[in-house]
Amino acid sequence: MKVSVNVILASLLVVAFSSNVIADEVKPEDAIKYRKSVMTVMNWQFKPLGAMVKGDRPFDKDVFIKNAAYLEVLSKMPLEGFIAGSDKGETKAKPEIWAEMEKFKGGMEKLQAETAKLAQVSKTGDMNQIKAQFGETGKTCKACHDNFKSK
Amino acid sequence: MKVSVNVILASLLVVAFSSNVIADEVKPEDAIKYRKSVMTVMNWQFKPLGAMVKGDRPFDKDVFIKNAAYLEVLSKMPLEGFIAGSDKGETKAKPEIWAEMEKFKGGMEKLQAETAKLAQVSKTGDMNQIKAQFGETGKTCKACHDNFKSK
Repeated sequence: MKVSVNVILASLLVVAFSSNVIADEVKPEDAIKYRKSVMTVMNWQFKPLGAMVKGDRPFDKDVFIKNAAYLEVLSKMPLEGFIAGSDKGETKAKPEIWAEMEKFKGGMEKLQAETAKLAQVSKTGDMNQIKAQFGETGKTCKACHDNFKSK
Repeated sequence: MKVSVNVILASLLVVAFSSNVIADEVKPEDAIKYRKSVMTVMNWQFKPLGAMVKGDRPFDKDVFIKNAAYLEVLSKMPLEGFIAGSDKGETKAKPEIWAEMEKFKGGMEKLQAETAKLAQVSKTGDMNQIKAQFGETGKTCKACHDNFKSK
């Protein structure tokens, strides 16, 4: 009966291993929903800053500092949502992201660096510096969207 | 012709003022989309920590510290999405949120405090402390969902 027991044990091991993998597995649709949500949150935090920079809304230093600090942290979050297999589905992400992942990562790191600078500069309250850095940050958004996001 | 000019100027002022107000106005549906997105992002960051605490996934101290730090910042974000008028629409938010806003804010502040503690405790790498604090954090999620979220 030794063989049977080994077979049973082996089967149990496979089941245990599979369930562990399943528990840890991320579905592509969840990754897509996650990264789109990060972008929605970033857009919400970014928009009032744009309105202040353009003069459509009175400058509020506290709100600017708060939102820019949030953006600094948020900018680190999207990348982990671009998992393998999440190029298909309800997404405008271009296949170029996965084909040129190093370039895409570089773009994300540039965004992280520019939002960190924006968070720093916002503390000065100096609108000239803020405007310039807001422009630099916006450029990094646009560069990635132009290269990696479908219209 | 002086009156006509004044009328034209007044009209222009009204248009300018209106467009300024419109530019700054937040639509209830955008606020709903924003706060749901924050919750989606929080859930994404929270889930792997739950799997680690339960033993469904091997403990990875770096991932735990990273996600807990994100959650500390993310926990500050939902509240601003519960604007007046956003109780109707594609939302499970109960009217009690607006009727008992101080209680709701208190719940959010409790979540902020507990995620901040989780971020601190995660740095120790001590699973007993981490498990206990993960439990406390989860309770604050549940308390608000029970009181303020429709099934």
